[in-house]
Amino acid sequence: MNYSNKIAITTGDPNGIGAEITIKALNMLNVPPRDIVIISNTKVLNASGILKNNYEILEVDYSPNIRFGEITAEAGDFSFRLLEKACSIKPKYIVTAPTSKEAMNLGGHKFSGQTEVLEHFLAHNGQKAEMLFVSKDFRILLLTRHVALKDVSKKITKELLIEKIERLRGYFQNRLYINKPSFALCALNPHAGENGLIGVEEDKIMLPAIEIIRNRGINITNPLPADTLFISGVQNYLNCEKMPYDCYIACYHDQGLIPIKSVASNKTVNMTIGLDIIRTSPSHGTAFDIAGKNMANPESMIEAIKCCLY
Amino acid sequence: MNYSNKIAITTGDPNGIGAEITIKALNMLNVPPRDIVIISNTKVLNASGILKNNYEILEVDYSPNIRFGEITAEAGDFSFRLLEKACSIKPKYIVTAPTSKEAMNLGGHKFSGQTEVLEHFLAHNGQKAEMLFVSKDFRILLLTRHVALKDVSKKITKELLIEKIERLRGYFQNRLYINKPSFALCALNPHAGENGLIGVEEDKIMLPAIEIIRNRGINITNPLPADTLFISGVQNYLNCEKMPYDCYIACYHDQGLIPIKSVASNKTVNMTIGLDIIRTSPSHGTAFDIAGKNMANPESMIEAIKCCLY
Repeated sequence: MNYSNKIAITTGDPNGIGAEITIKALNMLNVPPRDIVIISNTKVLNASGILKNNYEILEVDYSPNIRFGEITAEAGDFSFRLLEKACSIKPKYIVTAPTSKEAMNLGGHKFSGQTEVLEHFLAHNGQKAEMLFVSKDFRILLLTRHVALKDVSKKITKELLIEKIERLRGYFQNRLYINKPSFALCALNPHAGENGLIGVEEDKIMLPAIEIIRNRGINITNPLPADTLFISGVQNYLNCEKMPYDCYIACYHDQGLIPIKSVASNKTVNMTIGLDIIRTSPSHGTAFDIAGKNMANPESMIEAIKCCLY
Repeated sequence: MNYSNKIAITTGDPNGIGAEITIKALNMLNVPPRDIVIISNTKVLNASGILKNNYEILEVDYSPNIRFGEITAEAGDFSFRLLEKACSIKPKYIVTAPTSKEAMNLGGHKFSGQTEVLEHFLAHNGQKAEMLFVSKDFRILLLTRHVALKDVSKKITKELLIEKIERLRGYFQNRLYINKPSFALCALNPHAGENGLIGVEEDKIMLPAIEIIRNRGINITNPLPADTLFISGVQNYLNCEKMPYDCYIACYHDQGLIPIKSVASNKTVNMTIGLDIIRTSPSHGTAFDIAGKNMANPESMIEAIKCCLY
């Protein structure tokens, strides 16, 4: 079988809400079967609902009973094998329902998340995975992710900026066919450092990096004060108008995620770029507390699938 | 004269847009003359427009010609004397149009902003000024203000948290007559530190401080991940529904200002609390580039005055 035009959906941890939101999302979107392949296990799917359409299901072995809400080694190993299978069939997109890092670690797979598993299976020739947060055409790249605030400054280097922004341009050119995307760069410090009065990283690191980046033909702003930078983007997003920039580049987690999650809420999708296959995923976790109760909201999963359809 | 029920408005730097936005805002709001006293100079006011109503004007000497867009020692000294005058008459509120820190320094007044000047004239018995950012009932207190990002962690101490949050409660009780306000505290680190995996300040500093704060009868959350904390507040703000908390407490500048400015934009008002007189001010600067051209947008000044009226 050739899956190179299909969206592969992995249902994540079998004791969480992954299968439930997959079924609800596919039923609500009514995606044609030709576009989808589900990587899961019939028993896991049946425990969470009924699919309206007749989708192809690639079976992955899973012998234990479903134990909603529990963190088990078997469930973690199954979650891992779903991703392995999805990578092996080389689909166009992978949509991943949530997994439990703790369960995967118990199952013997020491990764800090699904992104790192995908990087392990897919990266070649020095490729690296980058996380993008997306809602419609509001896009945020994080320069640092799960880093303590006091350590962020040390991580922001010239090399990091150049490498990540070059990779971001590659995604726009090769995947979105936007040849000269416009990028807005958040300053690290309040008021963009106010000429060195409130921090020196803008002058010492970010501006020199930008000069090199611009010399490579990339359209990017100087580091701009982040509290005012997002105003026009958020207002345009709310008014369904064109965004001022194709992508915002935030120095750290909260700087980028506060504006997009605040306005897009459940419609925020987590996207992995930089590998041959684009991966999207809902921006929430396994929700073990409500697993198996038919209470899960599929909105974020719907958005994750929609990102691959249109 | 007794000004204790009045709003004193200072027109800020005479070479900036301060008088223009004051006149435009008062004309648009049509505030009754009994509520207002303007601290300025007739020449300065006349250079920027005509007031529709007959407001009381307290004259402060200013002999130089108006030189729109220029930074001068005389203008800085005048800006300072406006604040001195406003404090001396003990009004109920002070609304301050923008001044230039550089001009005030040239004029011999070495303060880092108007807040510090007001603190100098008004603080007694250990009072300290705190900055609150407000739009309708969306309120943000900043624990640190103009601090380089890499230094924020060091500034967040138990003592600082206790002192500022106690002062915040005082404002709610004494000024807004809300006896038990609800406060939401932003974590410093992503995911609130994830049990020490991404930073230890939540466990080592913030939680112990909160225990003491709660023992004083203050209603405050644990440190919560800031990227999800603001979702409900922003959505309620946009839908004109009651805010989930009376005030959000942000650890640093961008963490608090990104969400409020992104959604409230020009309607964000800068408020000084903790002194006997409440001060509000627009959230923008002197706009020297458009001064004297009748191009200034009075929206933020209107909001600053409205905060004192209703």
